[in-house]
Amino acid sequence: MILTVTLNTALDITYHIRSLRPHGTHRVTDVAERPGGKGLNVARVLAALGHEVTVTGFAGGGTGLSVQDGLTTAPGITDALVPITGATRRTIAVVDQQSGDTTQLNEPGPTITPAEWSAFQEAYEDLLRPAAAVALCGSLPPGVPVGAYAGLIRTARAANVPVLLDTGGEPLRRGIAARPDVVKPNADELAELTGSHEPLRATQDARRRGARAVVASLGADGLLALTPEGRWRAAPPEPIPGNPTGAGDAAVAGLLSGMVEQLTWPDRLTRAAALSAATVRARTAGEFDPGAYQDLLRRVAVTTDATAA
Amino acid sequence: MILTVTLNTALDITYHIRSLRPHGTHRVTDVAERPGGKGLNVARVLAALGHEVTVTGFAGGGTGLSVQDGLTTAPGITDALVPITGATRRTIAVVDQQSGDTTQLNEPGPTITPAEWSAFQEAYEDLLRPAAAVALCGSLPPGVPVGAYAGLIRTARAANVPVLLDTGGEPLRRGIAARPDVVKPNADELAELTGSHEPLRATQDARRRGARAVVASLGADGLLALTPEGRWRAAPPEPIPGNPTGAGDAAVAGLLSGMVEQLTWPDRLTRAAALSAATVRARTAGEFDPGAYQDLLRRVAVTTDATAA
Repeated sequence: MILTVTLNTALDITYHIRSLRPHGTHRVTDVAERPGGKGLNVARVLAALGHEVTVTGFAGGGTGLSVQDGLTTAPGITDALVPITGATRRTIAVVDQQSGDTTQLNEPGPTITPAEWSAFQEAYEDLLRPAAAVALCGSLPPGVPVGAYAGLIRTARAANVPVLLDTGGEPLRRGIAARPDVVKPNADELAELTGSHEPLRATQDARRRGARAVVASLGADGLLALTPEGRWRAAPPEPIPGNPTGAGDAAVAGLLSGMVEQLTWPDRLTRAAALSAATVRARTAGEFDPGAYQDLLRRVAVTTDATAA
Repeated sequence: MILTVTLNTALDITYHIRSLRPHGTHRVTDVAERPGGKGLNVARVLAALGHEVTVTGFAGGGTGLSVQDGLTTAPGITDALVPITGATRRTIAVVDQQSGDTTQLNEPGPTITPAEWSAFQEAYEDLLRPAAAVALCGSLPPGVPVGAYAGLIRTARAANVPVLLDTGGEPLRRGIAARPDVVKPNADELAELTGSHEPLRATQDARRRGARAVVASLGADGLLALTPEGRWRAAPPEPIPGNPTGAGDAAVAGLLSGMVEQLTWPDRLTRAAALSAATVRARTAGEFDPGAYQDLLRRVAVTTDATAA
C-alpha cells in the first residue's frame, strides 16, 4: 500500500459559464466536482496505475462529506481522512466557454485545532506500518505548525518507510532539513527555496539541504533529477500543448510507484515524465490520457547529465 | 406556525477577494455561507419577528447538509426539508474588497425525480395542517412541473390556509390562475406577466388573473397594493441607499406576519415596507437592521390611491 497525505484537502469545483463579466450575474451551465488537493490527485493516478493507495489528511463539514463521497467511487483508494470540526475548503475553477480560459477562486481552508493535529499524527503513525512508501503533498492549513512535514518525515524514517515531499515555501525549507528520500519542487518552489533561478544550481543547493534525491519539475523542460545514483534529465520528445494542472501530481505518482516497484532511476523518471505529459495532453484537467501515456513511455528521452558534479 | 416553501433551496456562499481579474487565480480572504433561497430568507425574517416558522422544500448532498446545519442554529425555524439524491445548488457572491462590487455565480440546481416530487407533496399536505399561513417562494428546480405552484395553492386553499405566492415567469402565470390570497411580484415579474411596464395597470391586470390581492414591490417606489379592502401605496419617506438583496423577501415576511396577526392592510404594508427598507440599509446583504426597522415603522407613509378603479 502507498500512503498519500493531504493536510489541506479540497473539494475541487469546476463551473462552466458563457463568459465571465466582473460584477455581472452568471448562470452556471455545468457543474463538476471531485476530491482535490495534491495528495488526492497523486492517489488517483497511483490507483489508475494499479496500486492500492490509502489517503489521509483532514475532512470536515458538508464539503468534507462530498470529498469522502467522491472517494468511495474511486476504485483502489482507501479513505483514511481524519475528521475535523471545520469545513474542508473549496476551490472553484470558472471556465469561460467562449475563450476556454479559467478563473480560479481558492478558499484558505479550515483551522486545524491542536487536538485534531494530534489525532492526525497518531493515525499517521498507524497508517505508516503497512505502507511501502508515503507522499506528503501540498500546503498546510491554518493551525498546523509550519514544521509539520519535518516531523512527519522523521516519523516515516523511524518506521523505515521511504518518504517523498512535494510542497513549497517554509514547509519545504523545514521539511527538507529532515532528510526526505525525495523532494519534487517545481521551478518556482526551487527558486524560492534557494534564491537561484538557475535550475541546476538550485537543484544542487536543494539536495545539499538534506534531500537524498531532488527531482525538479521544470514545465516544458521536463524533469531534472539529482540522486545518489546519478543525475538525469527526462523530457518528452516535443513540447506538449495543453493544461498543466495536475502534471506535477502525476509526476509524483510516477516517482512513487517506480520507487515501490524498485525500478531504476531512469525508468522512474521515464514514467514520471510520461505521466506528466499525458496529464497536460488530457482533455479533462488533472486526469492523464492513458493512450498518450503508453505512447510517451516509449518516447520520453532520459539523458545522463555529464556536467554533474 | 407559518410555513415557507423553497423548492430551489441554495447554499449561499459569499467570498471576499481583493479584486476579480478574469482568468487570474484568487485567494479568497473571507468565506461566509448560509442557507439560501427565497423561502429560507423569508423564514429568517419571520423568526426574527418572533414567529414560529417551518421551512420545507428540498435538500440533498453535502450542500444540503450545510443548509440543514445552518438551520439548526436559527432559533424559531423548524427544518422540514425533504431529502433528495441530487445536491442542493450553490450560489456564489464574489465581493471585490476594492470596489465593493459583487460578481454572482448561480448553479442551476439538482433535478428532482417524480418520486421526490410526490414525497414533497405528501409532506406539504401534512405540514399545512398546523399552519396559519404558507408562502410559496422562488424558482422551480429542474424536474418539478411548471404548474407546481398552482397545485400547491389549490391544496392550501382546500386546507383553508392562506397562501402567498412569490415567483416569476411561467410558474407565476400558472400559479396566479389558482387564486392565491396574495402575490408579490416585483416590477420585472409584473411586466413579464402582463406585458405592461406601467405598474398600476400591470398590478390591476395581475389581480384580474386570479389573485385576491397583489402587492407589487417597486424598488425605491415602495409597495403598491391592490386588495379586496382597498388600494394603497407604502414607501419610506426618503430613498434608502444600500443593497437591495433580500428586500423582496423581507417584504413577504412583513405581509405574511401581518396576515397571521390579523393586522389591517395598511399596517401590513407599513411593516412590509419598513422591513424591506431596513434590509436595504443593513450592513450584511439580506439581513434587516432592527434599529432601522423600528425607526422606519414610524416613518413609512401609507396612502390610499384615489385613482383606484
